[in-house]
Amino acid sequence: MNYYGNPITKLIEELSALPGIGGKSAQRLAFFIINMPKERALALSSSIKEARENVRYCSICCNLTDEDPCPICSNLKRDHKTIMVVEDPRDMAAYERTKQYHGMYHVLHGAISPMTGIGPQEIKIKELLNRLQNDDMIEEVILATNPNVEGEATAMYISRLLKPLQIKVTRIANGVPVGGDLEYVDEITLSRALEGRREM
Amino acid sequence: MNYYGNPITKLIEELSALPGIGGKSAQRLAFFIINMPKERALALSSSIKEARENVRYCSICCNLTDEDPCPICSNLKRDHKTIMVVEDPRDMAAYERTKQYHGMYHVLHGAISPMTGIGPQEIKIKELLNRLQNDDMIEEVILATNPNVEGEATAMYISRLLKPLQIKVTRIANGVPVGGDLEYVDEITLSRALEGRREM
Repeated sequence: MNYYGNPITKLIEELSALPGIGGKSAQRLAFFIINMPKERALALSSSIKEARENVRYCSICCNLTDEDPCPICSNLKRDHKTIMVVEDPRDMAAYERTKQYHGMYHVLHGAISPMTGIGPQEIKIKELLNRLQNDDMIEEVILATNPNVEGEATAMYISRLLKPLQIKVTRIANGVPVGGDLEYVDEITLSRALEGRREM
Repeated sequence: MNYYGNPITKLIEELSALPGIGGKSAQRLAFFIINMPKERALALSSSIKEARENVRYCSICCNLTDEDPCPICSNLKRDHKTIMVVEDPRDMAAYERTKQYHGMYHVLHGAISPMTGIGPQEIKIKELLNRLQNDDMIEEVILATNPNVEGEATAMYISRLLKPLQIKVTRIANGVPVGGDLEYVDEITLSRALEGRREM
């Protein structure tokens, strides 16, 4: 099976262990890498090493970062009284791109999912609770977990957990997506949009 | 735009320069790599470095290899009188998988394509010619370039070039693919299959 020589075969194997990359794509990528300018290939190699070695969780918000606390937690210009709880660093990035949110984040790194055996202990809920108990400046926790079964269950779980702390807990709105076509929006979303209607 | 911190952003950038990997996939891959067991991530990093640093062209067949001559060229059990000319190391691997071919290879690393500005000088035709002029053991050259416009043009060009050398030059057969359904085979292939019919 080793038609290409060891370094190539090994590279193909390593690449095909990545998600969404099958045998054929791994081969294509490997040959692309071998034909890349040398400094570009070495930059790729060292950026993998560096990212894996230097990236860790922010001790405050659990976001991935190379400096602790992360740039958002240490930014004094932001609103430190509000925490938005998200499942994933990518969700955080999505809200940052809106440029409409200026508060803090808390990254759970997952959602409660009994189906796949992920309970509240597996995600960063404990860290959120500690954070709220140690910081009495927090006025609001916005639950921005995904609008699916796991995300809703996680939001529900956290909101109950935070009840005794007397902090305002909110959930991002469900509704029709901007630019969407009503015709193609599912019934539950349409019902939620109706429930959540606002006076103009 | 730097929501994730430098090492992650840099990794995402490097990954998204790979073919077929867009911004979203690069993000997904980067987070996967960061969450990988450390030794697996470092193995990926070093296999990229090693492959890029140690892989070069075989001085005989131009295949990619980490030892020169490559294992196929230095294998004395194989038939050194026949050379199969392919466009790409992957085509070589495809023929190796058949286990029906035991001769040598010559890898062109491309095909003549005036549309994209690739002329005979850009691919390893000169090397093939040198090889044939210096080795009078060669009895047959099998042209196994792809059965498309560029591959046919390349095969045609090489066959004319080799005419004066008095070496037998053959082209792999066109025909209906095994396991295929005639109904879905294009007209040109059907015509070629008819032309190439053999007595049973």
